[in-house]
Amino acid sequence: MKLLRHGAPGREKPGLMDPMGNVRDLSDVVEDIDAHALAEGLIERLRDIDVAALPRIDGAPRIGPCIGGVGKIVCVGLNYIDHGAETGMALPREPVLFTKASSAITGPYDPIVIPRGAQKTDWEVELACVIGRTAKSVAAAAALDYVAGYCILNDVSERAFQLEKEGQWVKGKSCDTFAPIGPWLVTPEEVGDPQKLDLWLDVNGERRQTGNTAMMIFPLAHIIHYISRFMTLLPGDVVSTGTPPGVGMGMTPQTFLKAGDVVGLGVEGLGAQRQVCVDEARSSA
Amino acid sequence: MKLLRHGAPGREKPGLMDPMGNVRDLSDVVEDIDAHALAEGLIERLRDIDVAALPRIDGAPRIGPCIGGVGKIVCVGLNYIDHGAETGMALPREPVLFTKASSAITGPYDPIVIPRGAQKTDWEVELACVIGRTAKSVAAAAALDYVAGYCILNDVSERAFQLEKEGQWVKGKSCDTFAPIGPWLVTPEEVGDPQKLDLWLDVNGERRQTGNTAMMIFPLAHIIHYISRFMTLLPGDVVSTGTPPGVGMGMTPQTFLKAGDVVGLGVEGLGAQRQVCVDEARSSA
Repeated sequence: MKLLRHGAPGREKPGLMDPMGNVRDLSDVVEDIDAHALAEGLIERLRDIDVAALPRIDGAPRIGPCIGGVGKIVCVGLNYIDHGAETGMALPREPVLFTKASSAITGPYDPIVIPRGAQKTDWEVELACVIGRTAKSVAAAAALDYVAGYCILNDVSERAFQLEKEGQWVKGKSCDTFAPIGPWLVTPEEVGDPQKLDLWLDVNGERRQTGNTAMMIFPLAHIIHYISRFMTLLPGDVVSTGTPPGVGMGMTPQTFLKAGDVVGLGVEGLGAQRQVCVDEARSSA
Repeated sequence: MKLLRHGAPGREKPGLMDPMGNVRDLSDVVEDIDAHALAEGLIERLRDIDVAALPRIDGAPRIGPCIGGVGKIVCVGLNYIDHGAETGMALPREPVLFTKASSAITGPYDPIVIPRGAQKTDWEVELACVIGRTAKSVAAAAALDYVAGYCILNDVSERAFQLEKEGQWVKGKSCDTFAPIGPWLVTPEEVGDPQKLDLWLDVNGERRQTGNTAMMIFPLAHIIHYISRFMTLLPGDVVSTGTPPGVGMGMTPQTFLKAGDVVGLGVEGLGAQRQVCVDEARSSA
């Protein structure tokens, strides 16, 4: 099942993508695809639904972030063996956790707004998951049972804010529009093994990142287990798993996003995102 | 006005503390004191309310966190001139931002649960504010206009998780129960100048922290201005402003919390909190 949210920013309605590629509306079934609905068992409830009977949305509605009401976004840094090398940082002995503000979430085709004063805005294609039920100190062997579904996350990062100012990475990870998620929340039975998925990212049509989730240092099941020792994961929380090599910071010379650049990215089975970069001064976001 | 939330965890109802110290119920006025209600102008709506006509809650109801639906908690580290010295870290040139997961929020009199594997669980009394309306790139001179009210936050911190593991502080700042807030959300006209407030914290009746918000390196107005350059602050977001000297990490020898310890803390005009420490293994939290 490919769940999605369609409509204007902040007023998205629930929907799904049917097998023919049509957007179907779920407004008569659930108010929203959000933390509350997941906690109330939305995914189970949708299993027996007659998709063909759902109203079809004509035209090309805006697709919003695939989950609403996100309580937190917990990310893992330096989690690909081959990405670790390009950053010049030592490989971690345990997962490096950081957070992105949930106010950074945006739709998969919405613009990336390069903030005022930014110098080094970078891309990071990632496999993310959305938590479906409360996870506290869960064993790695059971951890994937807590996943409601998978989605793409572009972990957009302003490196100057992240690394060259005082303090913690969150400053460069949390700018508005720095967390495009979607287009779909794909349920686990459609995805299969999350550690066998190809990832890719293009800037202006040139391939920048290529990877496979098999190269993760800490697989998702371990990551959920690990995070849940330190904080409870709640329905609707997003966990992102790190990026493969090919970020702008790792290029020679370093290359970053500028207004007009087009970023395309995808994860096998989870669709694709596309963002046009704009300067904050020229945007109303 | 001293707003509060009363009732069982996760099912708190809105209320306020009247001038006689009685808890009055606001359920007929608003569904909850939360991000949504603030965005809808709750504070303005309450200005003309007849407090004496509100139902009085008898007995001693549990007091919950003073704000619900918190989108993010943004904190400032090393923000007191006199606390910087005890940590041994250099004074920051600009605010050191970090986050606590909103799942860490708990009521002001609820237990602090010391997590499994914790070795260095520490206390930090802080002045916090709750944002009342959307703040994006706001000037420092106007920043306090975005504050819905003030509250106490105990920025409970497991130093071993924060500083001795891979990565970012968030790992030691976000454990469940590590963000007691309340008892009240006190509206700005009652607080006056937020840079003239005494703070204190006791452990087992012994004074550990004493400070005044006048000693902040970056005052709250600058902090809100600064954060809002990097990410939009939304109604219901919590901003916490750092802690004065006297944390356990700064003592000789270092001293940390253990099960049975009682932490009391307060900020002038904002009431007081009291937490009993329990071990996770013995708690159901």
